[in-house]
Amino acid sequence: MSTLFLRTLRDDPADAEVPSHKLLLRAGYVRRVAPGVYSWLPLGLRVLRRVENVVREEMNRIGAQEISLPALLPREPYETTGRWTEYGDALFRLKDRRGADMLLGPTHEELFAQLVKGEYSSYKDLPVTLYQIQTKYRDEERPRAGILRGREFVMKDSYSFDLDEAGTKASYNAHREAYQAIFARLGVRYVIVAATSGAMGGSASEEFLAESEVGEDTYVRSPESGYAANVEAVVTPSPPAIPIEGQPEATVYETGSTPTIATLVDWANATLDRPVTAADTLKNVMVKVIVPGKEPEIVGVGVPGDREVDMKRLEASFEPSAVELLDEADFAANPFLVKGYIGPRGLIAHGVRYLVDPRVVDGTSWITGADEQGKHVVGLVAGRDFVADGTVEAAAIRDGDPSPDGTGTLVSARGIEIGHIFSLGQKYTDAFEVDVLGENGKPVRLIQGSYGVGVSRLVAVIAEQTHDEKGLCWPESVAPFDVHVVIANAKDPAIVAGAHELAADLDAWGREVLLDDRKASPGVKFKDAELLGTPYIVVVGRGFVDGLVEVRVRATGAVSEIPVADVRSALGAR
Amino acid sequence: MSTLFLRTLRDDPADAEVPSHKLLLRAGYVRRVAPGVYSWLPLGLRVLRRVENVVREEMNRIGAQEISLPALLPREPYETTGRWTEYGDALFRLKDRRGADMLLGPTHEELFAQLVKGEYSSYKDLPVTLYQIQTKYRDEERPRAGILRGREFVMKDSYSFDLDEAGTKASYNAHREAYQAIFARLGVRYVIVAATSGAMGGSASEEFLAESEVGEDTYVRSPESGYAANVEAVVTPSPPAIPIEGQPEATVYETGSTPTIATLVDWANATLDRPVTAADTLKNVMVKVIVPGKEPEIVGVGVPGDREVDMKRLEASFEPSAVELLDEADFAANPFLVKGYIGPRGLIAHGVRYLVDPRVVDGTSWITGADEQGKHVVGLVAGRDFVADGTVEAAAIRDGDPSPDGTGTLVSARGIEIGHIFSLGQKYTDAFEVDVLGENGKPVRLIQGSYGVGVSRLVAVIAEQTHDEKGLCWPESVAPFDVHVVIANAKDPAIVAGAHELAADLDAWGREVLLDDRKASPGVKFKDAELLGTPYIVVVGRGFVDGLVEVRVRATGAVSEIPVADVRSALGAR
Repeated sequence: MSTLFLRTLRDDPADAEVPSHKLLLRAGYVRRVAPGVYSWLPLGLRVLRRVENVVREEMNRIGAQEISLPALLPREPYETTGRWTEYGDALFRLKDRRGADMLLGPTHEELFAQLVKGEYSSYKDLPVTLYQIQTKYRDEERPRAGILRGREFVMKDSYSFDLDEAGTKASYNAHREAYQAIFARLGVRYVIVAATSGAMGGSASEEFLAESEVGEDTYVRSPESGYAANVEAVVTPSPPAIPIEGQPEATVYETGSTPTIATLVDWANATLDRPVTAADTLKNVMVKVIVPGKEPEIVGVGVPGDREVDMKRLEASFEPSAVELLDEADFAANPFLVKGYIGPRGLIAHGVRYLVDPRVVDGTSWITGADEQGKHVVGLVAGRDFVADGTVEAAAIRDGDPSPDGTGTLVSARGIEIGHIFSLGQKYTDAFEVDVLGENGKPVRLIQGSYGVGVSRLVAVIAEQTHDEKGLCWPESVAPFDVHVVIANAKDPAIVAGAHELAADLDAWGREVLLDDRKASPGVKFKDAELLGTPYIVVVGRGFVDGLVEVRVRATGAVSEIPVADVRSALGAR
Repeated sequence: MSTLFLRTLRDDPADAEVPSHKLLLRAGYVRRVAPGVYSWLPLGLRVLRRVENVVREEMNRIGAQEISLPALLPREPYETTGRWTEYGDALFRLKDRRGADMLLGPTHEELFAQLVKGEYSSYKDLPVTLYQIQTKYRDEERPRAGILRGREFVMKDSYSFDLDEAGTKASYNAHREAYQAIFARLGVRYVIVAATSGAMGGSASEEFLAESEVGEDTYVRSPESGYAANVEAVVTPSPPAIPIEGQPEATVYETGSTPTIATLVDWANATLDRPVTAADTLKNVMVKVIVPGKEPEIVGVGVPGDREVDMKRLEASFEPSAVELLDEADFAANPFLVKGYIGPRGLIAHGVRYLVDPRVVDGTSWITGADEQGKHVVGLVAGRDFVADGTVEAAAIRDGDPSPDGTGTLVSARGIEIGHIFSLGQKYTDAFEVDVLGENGKPVRLIQGSYGVGVSRLVAVIAEQTHDEKGLCWPESVAPFDVHVVIANAKDPAIVAGAHELAADLDAWGREVLLDDRKASPGVKFKDAELLGTPYIVVVGRGFVDGLVEVRVRATGAVSEIPVADVRSALGAR
């Protein structure tokens, strides 16, 4: 440690909020260079490489072959699939000296499809799974929490190519199991949840979410059934339709100043001869759907008034397009939108696409806007008085909602995406016509899968899940060193010599040893040792005159004084 | 091999000229994605990783510490040192979603200087050497020969920080020796030559050039003295000055149409009463020196008429500015420049900076242009009739030129730059005020060194130096596999089983084995084995019924039939 390029910080850095970020900075693992762009210092790089190796070993175990594609890529393949524009501002674009458009790869579906097309030509060549562990680039709108969500980051991405659905399923499951093995070896607590496919396209996908309160993803589970999904992927069950016949006619009322659901419910309870709750009202939220290079489309979203619109769910429904709420200028430009009094009939009459929550089935009767200042309509029946253009998943999911699989109710928690597996189908192989000659002599279009692990993010996730108030606390599988040997008194030659001897012995035994040979006080050294988070701390101090050293287990805090000769067995098998 | 992601090509690819490039493509090691941008397929990646590891081990051996900085960098540090503009078109620049200027790192002097400033504060912290093995980006004007000169490439760059000159020298020498160890282990034939510092700045530098006819660098050596230098770094010895007194006066002659040196020499020999050669004439070449963001400066370069101007030497003299010959438009805009008849007096009279070859010392007398159509001046004496603004290294170096160190004459050869070591002095530590508190309590400005190895380029260099007409031929230190086992007859179950058993045995012995278990003919397999270039090829074929296998040494072509039990000893210690 006297020569290691490492300086720990006593205080939390001002710009770090999440515990793992604070600690990785304080312990000198990473340093910020630009927003979402970090340097890996010696200890950080060691952890990153160990995480990489766990991922590599498990990928090799399922027969995936490692290659390495460039990060600097030409525009054309991404143009072919539409992702050059679909990615929007998240794509780093640049021009080379000849003016050619290039990009920094955010993910490589296109390139792998082209590569397989170039090398393989027969059904006999398949299946194949290729992977890389590589630096990727995404110009995140909100890079945050250091390496947890960076703009330059390390990812393992793999791609499977199969001849048929059975093969694709086998490749998907092999990855699912490999990921379970990876996260188990890394000691990460996680859940597997149903997910949306987003900008990736394709049919089915699941996410691996590390359990964490600082996570940006919310997922729900039904403990009774085992159902689990990212809230973005929850499909709201539709209730059965209700007979329309015999329902009272829709009636428009002067409701005075009732621009919010609460004021409307108050009016209804004061006026109508039945109890009304927010769930009886239909709230119409106006958004614009943005496709780069096109005029934004105004869309109306109708949800029961007791539900908020969850913008992340709404965005997921429109992926890869972006979605924004209308602003004042939009309302001004569309005077038929009477804010606070917007109703389905006005939207439909003006040709605005109108999508509703799946609970708005035929025969449901609503209190909603009448498209005039101070007026609402009561008894507006879906399927009779208006017909929506379709349904949309926009309403917020709440704890206690019925589980979509019909068993139990949902509870929610937060998580960090650490892995994602996709069945892409033929989206990319269609785009590049990736065919091989089939057994029957006819061309077979390949089916692609895509699978990602956030390698650098995992360093932060493990730090987040394992740290305590004293500092980092690495599992043995990824710790930067196996043992941290502290020379408690650097002025005592016997202690110094003994510590060096012990370190050399552990090194010869195959352990990575960090030796604190600095002239600092024991207090400073202990604090640093706890901050750095090596699993075992061996203190060579006063007891050494009697042949004793202190072994501290970082994770449990257990301390024992044992003979030097017993250190190996105290550290145990790895 | 039946499942390996590898397809060899029978024919040379059309767009490859250099042997290593052809072979790395044919043998399926790399694939092109864009000009100067390549993918590494399984075999190529294996070689790349092994080269990386040799470099890493030797860097660790000299106490350098591995870290990893981002490739995506903010503009500011490069703005501070001027390299944001100095790099010209070779720098990949881009903007992020908020409009901030960013770049893809071509080399990281700035970032390392800032990093050390951020972490270290005392003389006790020094010296320190940090390195990274990282993907770098340069938008080369002429990417060529595949991975030999790419726009995305892997480099090892290290940076030393020292308190004083003695420390800097020690760090420089440690790198020099580490590089010798690296290239020796890789089996590369190379020379160490004096070099220019170029865009890097700083005082001294040496290049490691791999000997190769396809190299872009020319270097010269004096076999008698051991002197060696990149031609760009050759300093022309100045002859002693000649007495001016008594030399005939300069006389302007009508020389008719004599716009070239040859026509001028013919005229002189026909007119003057002494023999004249091209070496008696002074050729004035007009160039413009380009600094981004500024008006180009016109400069006159005077060299003896028997020498060409070597644009690479001239460019090196003006680094980091770019240099171009004047074009027709430039001549039209400057009518005082009479093409073919330009002379020193006209240039100086018009305030044009005029630089001459170091051989143009005071008292030398020249036949040169008289700045009028059809006129030259004879007997124009340097130091009497004109005084140049300085000297410049522009004239081409020729075999047989005297060595600058005074011993012997120069011979030239071509090479590929594989390493470069620089004493940077305080260029970067001044820019960022990288000071630590000295032993005497006063701040000490650090001295930086910069050292690079072209890691991915080395893969091509080794291929270039070791290949033969049959294919690649890797040294054992970097071969993708140690042994290539060929099943000569995939239909004979005994042979198949025996080959698998042998492969498993070698694998258990710690060797990386490539087993050719394909259904192809023995001829195809032998050809592929030779093309792929594994050091040992073991053929399990007809002799196996008698317990014999054939061992072929790829490099020598030696073939021996030996008992299976002797294979381990035939492969030898590694």
